Amino acid sequence: MPGFTRRRFVMTAAASALAATSATAQTDPLPSWNDGPAKQAILDFVKRVTVEGAVDFVPVPERIAVFDNDGTLWSEQPIYFQFAFAVDRVKALAPEHPEWKTEEPFKSLLAGDLKGLVASGEKGLLEIMAVSHTGMTTESFTKTVTDWLAGAQHPRFKRPYTDLVYQPMLELTFYLRAQGFKTFIVSGGGIEFMRPWTEKIYGIPPEQVVGSSGVVKFEMSADGKPTLMKEAKVEFIDDGPGKPVGINRFIGRRPVFAFGNSDGDQQMLEWTAAGAGLRFMGLVHHTDAEREWAYDRQSHIGKLDKALDEANAKGWTVADMKRDWKRVFAFEP
Amino acid sequence: MPGFTRRRFVMTAAASALAATSATAQTDPLPSWNDGPAKQAILDFVKRVTVEGAVDFVPVPERIAVFDNDGTLWSEQPIYFQFAFAVDRVKALAPEHPEWKTEEPFKSLLAGDLKGLVASGEKGLLEIMAVSHTGMTTESFTKTVTDWLAGAQHPRFKRPYTDLVYQPMLELTFYLRAQGFKTFIVSGGGIEFMRPWTEKIYGIPPEQVVGSSGVVKFEMSADGKPTLMKEAKVEFIDDGPGKPVGINRFIGRRPVFAFGNSDGDQQMLEWTAAGAGLRFMGLVHHTDAEREWAYDRQSHIGKLDKALDEANAKGWTVADMKRDWKRVFAFEP
Repeated sequence: MPGFTRRRFVMTAAASALAATSATAQTDPLPSWNDGPAKQAILDFVKRVTVEGAVDFVPVPERIAVFDNDGTLWSEQPIYFQFAFAVDRVKALAPEHPEWKTEEPFKSLLAGDLKGLVASGEKGLLEIMAVSHTGMTTESFTKTVTDWLAGAQHPRFKRPYTDLVYQPMLELTFYLRAQGFKTFIVSGGGIEFMRPWTEKIYGIPPEQVVGSSGVVKFEMSADGKPTLMKEAKVEFIDDGPGKPVGINRFIGRRPVFAFGNSDGDQQMLEWTAAGAGLRFMGLVHHTDAEREWAYDRQSHIGKLDKALDEANAKGWTVADMKRDWKRVFAFEP
Repeated sequence: MPGFTRRRFVMTAAASALAATSATAQTDPLPSWNDGPAKQAILDFVKRVTVEGAVDFVPVPERIAVFDNDGTLWSEQPIYFQFAFAVDRVKALAPEHPEWKTEEPFKSLLAGDLKGLVASGEKGLLEIMAVSHTGMTTESFTKTVTDWLAGAQHPRFKRPYTDLVYQPMLELTFYLRAQGFKTFIVSGGGIEFMRPWTEKIYGIPPEQVVGSSGVVKFEMSADGKPTLMKEAKVEFIDDGPGKPVGINRFIGRRPVFAFGNSDGDQQMLEWTAAGAGLRFMGLVHHTDAEREWAYDRQSHIGKLDKALDEANAKGWTVADMKRDWKRVFAFEP
């Protein structure tokens, strides 16, 4: 994401960091959160685990905080942004593939026929992901993602997708890091799709991004240049019960703080909750159709049903977007 | 590794940290290295990439340093220490498995019959690894490893295995971290075998340990307790061409500094070398049968042949143990 967009976001992130760590922070480290139970639960938890000698104290190396990405750190409507990327890639590659004019799922996709696309099912989806995400080196894919983000616009907000980061959650990640936490993304999204931009946008470096992945193969060219090729084979799905597995694989210790927004995050929250000592489990509840979107139990994207019941039953924190967030996006007036 | 051993190692690590960062450091951050080309190459590289504004400057987030473990950070003779653990586990579990008295590879292992064990081949080895490493929760395995390390002794040195950490390499990791590097282990060894102790012994936290792994499965018990079960299926071998793949998967960016000791590290060094800008590639050459071991091209463990040729051809740094290390282990007088 070079040029204008990138600089703008670095500045946004820097401004947020300042807000969270300088004079403002002494009175309010979470200025985009309304006073209420969600904000209070966060502040209480952080205070209890960071006061040395207190019964709930957690040493710095164990302050692991994990965040889902889609619907938790940025929006996921009307379609996952990574799928928007895949659709745009298919369109960009179409001139090299005249056969796509007659072959599904490409025919429907290129014709803008959503019904036909849905009819192609999971097999069609995997084909779209394969042609847009594999058959190239990891470096080439990184460039493709970066270039796309620099030019693409969200259909509703007519802004770069990275503008649709939730300001309250950004403040939360800055606040936790200022309090000695190490912040990780644990997302069902593709690990190679996120890593090119998470450091600039969230301040979370690539090595702290956990996600779904495809098989990658080491190859040595005839002239001795090593490359990593992305193959059309799914390796790991970091969603649902895969999230504790991904956490175990990549982080190797149990988080004390976890935030998600859907049933795909339920096991991650359960795994976090089952550790010894004080833990924080949070869910973003999308309740604001005006500023963002309102959806939960019936949604095809980011369905929040069983996890909401469990949160209510167990007293996990539910951040009600409409009630708890003073501001959703940084671009709001 | 609770109790005496653990405290002793924390103290050793702390003492080394002090040596590398306090008054001593101003004159020599690597006191266990003899003056010579290897030490000079390290100091020159670090100086060139850390001076802001210099042509070879590398920003802090990109200062990724990777280290192989067996034979690079600690010894690997006469057998990989993880295999010694596996053998001890089979012996400990034998009373519950009377059938092992007649079944290979267990029969040979329990009888101390090395020839019979070797004859059982890779299949036998995998069986030994399976019964000693799987069929339990991740937490139970962590406890087993920790307990074993607290009691086991290396057959030659009659000391805990963790005493066989190379003091010069420990100093090197401390020195790099003091210079803004993030240090990672990238080992063919099992990730779950290393993570319980790398933070105490090397100062490298679990989330910076990359290694081979087996499949892990999330399970929810009838009474609602989530666990991660280690299954008897290999998931990923982080060795040879697997090392750049593991680096890409876990770290997501290319290292600028890599140290190994065998042909299993060759692709990791090649992948590191192929990045833009100044890079450091190093190999430990085991040349000291008196203080440690001497082996390279013909060794069954830690074979160093092709990678040594490539290092010589390309001017990578070779740390000759006998020549370059003033002290090998911290326990030496």
